[in-house]
Amino acid sequence: MTRDSESHYTVLAGGTGAAKFLRGLIPIFPPERIHVIANVGDDLEMWGLHISPDIDAILYALSDQLDWERGWGMRDETFRCLAAMDRLGAPAWFKLGDTDLATHLQRTSMMKAGLTLSEAVDRLCAAMNIRSRVMPATDDHLRTRLETLDGVLDFQEFFVRELWQPEVRSVAYVGAAEAQAPAAVLQSIHDARVVIVAPSNPITSIGPILAVPGIRDALRCTRAEVVAVSPIIGKSAVSGPAAKLMEACGYDVSAQGVARCYHDFLDLIVIDGTDAAMAASIRYDTIAVETTDILIKDAGGAKRLAEFVVAKAHENSSAAG
Amino acid sequence: MTRDSESHYTVLAGGTGAAKFLRGLIPIFPPERIHVIANVGDDLEMWGLHISPDIDAILYALSDQLDWERGWGMRDETFRCLAAMDRLGAPAWFKLGDTDLATHLQRTSMMKAGLTLSEAVDRLCAAMNIRSRVMPATDDHLRTRLETLDGVLDFQEFFVRELWQPEVRSVAYVGAAEAQAPAAVLQSIHDARVVIVAPSNPITSIGPILAVPGIRDALRCTRAEVVAVSPIIGKSAVSGPAAKLMEACGYDVSAQGVARCYHDFLDLIVIDGTDAAMAASIRYDTIAVETTDILIKDAGGAKRLAEFVVAKAHENSSAAG
Repeated sequence: MTRDSESHYTVLAGGTGAAKFLRGLIPIFPPERIHVIANVGDDLEMWGLHISPDIDAILYALSDQLDWERGWGMRDETFRCLAAMDRLGAPAWFKLGDTDLATHLQRTSMMKAGLTLSEAVDRLCAAMNIRSRVMPATDDHLRTRLETLDGVLDFQEFFVRELWQPEVRSVAYVGAAEAQAPAAVLQSIHDARVVIVAPSNPITSIGPILAVPGIRDALRCTRAEVVAVSPIIGKSAVSGPAAKLMEACGYDVSAQGVARCYHDFLDLIVIDGTDAAMAASIRYDTIAVETTDILIKDAGGAKRLAEFVVAKAHENSSAAG
Repeated sequence: MTRDSESHYTVLAGGTGAAKFLRGLIPIFPPERIHVIANVGDDLEMWGLHISPDIDAILYALSDQLDWERGWGMRDETFRCLAAMDRLGAPAWFKLGDTDLATHLQRTSMMKAGLTLSEAVDRLCAAMNIRSRVMPATDDHLRTRLETLDGVLDFQEFFVRELWQPEVRSVAYVGAAEAQAPAAVLQSIHDARVVIVAPSNPITSIGPILAVPGIRDALRCTRAEVVAVSPIIGKSAVSGPAAKLMEACGYDVSAQGVARCYHDFLDLIVIDGTDAAMAASIRYDTIAVETTDILIKDAGGAKRLAEFVVAKAHENSSAAG
């Protein structure tokens, strides 16, 4: 039990969905016991700045600065610099807020000074009094690129600029094959009490993390219980283009399709109560299934879901052990 | 007279004082007839951005975005990014506003893409609908550096961060000897109807412009009338550290001291009526003198002063011709 009371919970995270789930995990554990491995496939260069939308959603969530309703950016944000950039003819489709901008300026300055993204994130965490660990899946260049009928788009171009309207033919994780996972990332998976795959887009949020050599293998080999929360209810994504992208990649748009994305390392998946009928077919893949209301509406709902996920992970772990 | 109605007025400019003077010149002439050669000795790198405080004061003045009271930055500005940068531990002594920040981001991006400062300023002018010409005195690296009893400081460190308190021993224009004046700058001086040295700090605003090889010589050789407006009334600067720096550089702190700074190329100086007593000794240096109320209090006062300066320059030019 000593080990249990000290060991950590490692969350594989995209942006909005993961941030909302973390909102429920934060009140359960001391911050030091929460590790987050964050997607960098959505990162982009804008206005000469290195922007990491998913990492920032996590940072703002962990420091309770996130606009929880919107799921991205800071609360009480203003967009005066953005309006001025628009007047100057700069691209203004990516909504960088005035306060949010500070994070990008700081990160970019630190990286220009030679720090890795991981080191920059560590310093941002310290400045924001975040005591949980936030780790980019890689410090190398990795970008999710979508082949669409309108041409090849970076993820944010597809998601924000084109409002995920273009038809998607395929998804590539550019740079993934050459990317390295930081040792701390692999260690965090290896030593975790539980690894939680957040209810994020399996293709463009979790997919790029899994594409970094070594991470998928670490998930297969860890003694931690690996549990995912489905980002799909029925045949629809809770938010964003997860359904569209799963379909484009040949996965069934369902909790079962999500389980299939993670089939080689997943011990347990938490799906919505309304999807209970597909539990049997998921179990056929030797993945345990628990059902509950997985739609996060507020802080209370997030905590209830996180408690459920952790409890079921522990139960399943004991049962397996 | 055809030549007169088409020829341009070239203003040598620092920041605040020049911006306030330009406010009066703008309503007198079509914008195309106003050229500004701007100081870059105050430029700095902050948050990874290239900041040109004097150029920006001019841009904001010419596009009527300047906070005319404060003499720098945009009207109705907010400082939310600055506050966030401060919280993140970044230097926050240089007051970059949220709207102002867009100018620095755009300029920095353009320069990173390979544009010269002049080209970046041209594009900013176009984006701000500025039809006057704004020309940096050089595209090369030139920085005003002050040797003080507290150590060597860049101009903005001395001026903004240290509130111009440290005692100054000497002033250097680092990089000036190697800097080149853009051809358009020399041409503008050469072809001007009148060259006006704005009521700016002779040491740290006009001095760095004059330190660029070729510019001082162009001022000596131009057939244009060269007229200066004194930034000193009595023994005090209208604003800022001009008096302190003139003294440190061995100049008498007076309108006469200002005339002496420009003695080798100046045809006429406009000084305050309260300084009329020193007119005779300035004329002894073969510089013509006109007196009026030179303290700019508002738009009306700026226009009245600009009209006076232009009229007297024309008169003096005709008399000399």
